[in-house]
Amino acid sequence: MIDPIIIGTVALDSLETPFGRVKNALGGSACYASIAASFFSKPGILSIIGKDFPDEHINFLNKKGINTLGIILGEKTFRWQGFYEFDMNEAKTLRTELNALESYKVEVPEDYKNAKYAFLANIDPELQLAAVNNMKKPELVVMDTMNFWIEHKKKQLLKTIEKADILVLNDAEARQLFNTPNLVKAANTALKLHTKAVIIKKGEHGALLFTDNKHFNAPGYPLENIKDPTGCGDCFGGAFTGYIAKTQDLSETNLRKAVVYGSIIASYNAEDFSIERLRNINHEDIEKRYKEFKSIREF
Amino acid sequence: MIDPIIIGTVALDSLETPFGRVKNALGGSACYASIAASFFSKPGILSIIGKDFPDEHINFLNKKGINTLGIILGEKTFRWQGFYEFDMNEAKTLRTELNALESYKVEVPEDYKNAKYAFLANIDPELQLAAVNNMKKPELVVMDTMNFWIEHKKKQLLKTIEKADILVLNDAEARQLFNTPNLVKAANTALKLHTKAVIIKKGEHGALLFTDNKHFNAPGYPLENIKDPTGCGDCFGGAFTGYIAKTQDLSETNLRKAVVYGSIIASYNAEDFSIERLRNINHEDIEKRYKEFKSIREF
Repeated sequence: MIDPIIIGTVALDSLETPFGRVKNALGGSACYASIAASFFSKPGILSIIGKDFPDEHINFLNKKGINTLGIILGEKTFRWQGFYEFDMNEAKTLRTELNALESYKVEVPEDYKNAKYAFLANIDPELQLAAVNNMKKPELVVMDTMNFWIEHKKKQLLKTIEKADILVLNDAEARQLFNTPNLVKAANTALKLHTKAVIIKKGEHGALLFTDNKHFNAPGYPLENIKDPTGCGDCFGGAFTGYIAKTQDLSETNLRKAVVYGSIIASYNAEDFSIERLRNINHEDIEKRYKEFKSIREF
Repeated sequence: MIDPIIIGTVALDSLETPFGRVKNALGGSACYASIAASFFSKPGILSIIGKDFPDEHINFLNKKGINTLGIILGEKTFRWQGFYEFDMNEAKTLRTELNALESYKVEVPEDYKNAKYAFLANIDPELQLAAVNNMKKPELVVMDTMNFWIEHKKKQLLKTIEKADILVLNDAEARQLFNTPNLVKAANTALKLHTKAVIIKKGEHGALLFTDNKHFNAPGYPLENIKDPTGCGDCFGGAFTGYIAKTQDLSETNLRKAVVYGSIIASYNAEDFSIERLRNINHEDIEKRYKEFKSIREF
């Protein structure tokens, strides 16, 4: 059973941080999200790659239990080139080559259509919408986005949000989309768009979960060594949705746990470049950090 | 029994935020901190005011159980004029009149010298040091500072830090003082200066407590309406120290509680201009918010 389905980008990233650099490394929102989800469930990816995409990456994804039948083959893989400065809070883009993404039309394999859970990772909101519309009976649709779509496709984005149950944004995006510096106000506005919940990711400051009349504040993990924050937000959303797909429990209590698992996978991801750190963590590592998340907030 | 003693400024503030403005309102680091501490204990202020300082403010402080014998009378009260922009994250200074502060020499009343706890609120580090040196047997000295002293009196500041047990900084100051964007690294460097604990205040993102090998992450309170954040950091340190003075318990567990009480008083303070909100909260309000702080972090 393939669940959740995850639509987003699969990319080859070249980037530099104060702690090193990588060239043509595995990246993209669907890639990070599906690896993160794979610690909890059996996700399937919807995306497009090119003929230049190394087989070893597909093999790696499959070895993680990720279904890649929904990845279409185009001419050339989407590439992103960027860097992070001293404070590593924001990725600066040097160059984006959309390549195959430019003409990507969502094709959903039959096996994916019965999935009950979906994570719409960052990609054009019209593609996100197409993915949801292909699900027979979605139980929970979680969606992410980014500033580019807020600026350039706000109308389509709001249409997709209408179809989503849980909206995941970072703090800057929440402020931008709802036009207020106050995150509580932003979340309350989002809840009025009949989303069940809003999650605001705040990087090192943790994450906030807002539901109808409850609020959960997840801590950031105290990482002393951050090598590369690329993909942390995608990991968060992927792990969150993967954990929900595993537990099939939509209670507020379980959403809180899912937020913590999302934070855990994201915190590991920042410890090395590309998806390297995720290659060698296991369930024991995840549970160890889960306990630490508990201990750093007891009073 | 006067405890803690609190050195800092007493000021008349004129400021504007997107939600209104006040003129010559009660302010200053020692003022905010002592009112915050007064919810838990009987603080005494060390500071200086001028002949222009309204009696009603002294009466109010005394009514709160705050000893003001340590406030010297000079010519003219310290005045600060500033504003906050849309996001209210940073106070912009329009004008600072040091006035009486310029020639302030610390004079510690006999009654203050037996205090066991001190909060060195933001003021010249040499004045902070003089206050500590007048204590007969300090058990816990908590100190705050600000970017101005890091930039202009770093040497004297580090000397005062040597005398302090707990260093309280905001995130930007921690990054600046210890020359790293990583707050965990900054805290670890601070702990090497033989401070017992380091607390990093992060405004809406809460506060971090670092001790030898433990870490506590206090949430920010989800405030939908923030009118004026002036003095929140001072309130945090004052309430923190006041709670410690009340409980006389320096265990890590109790430091965590003190951090939460500091956060609670700071969160109330932001809800109105000057010290207005603190005029009308009581123990019930504080305990109510304490419970909310618990509930927003359970998972």
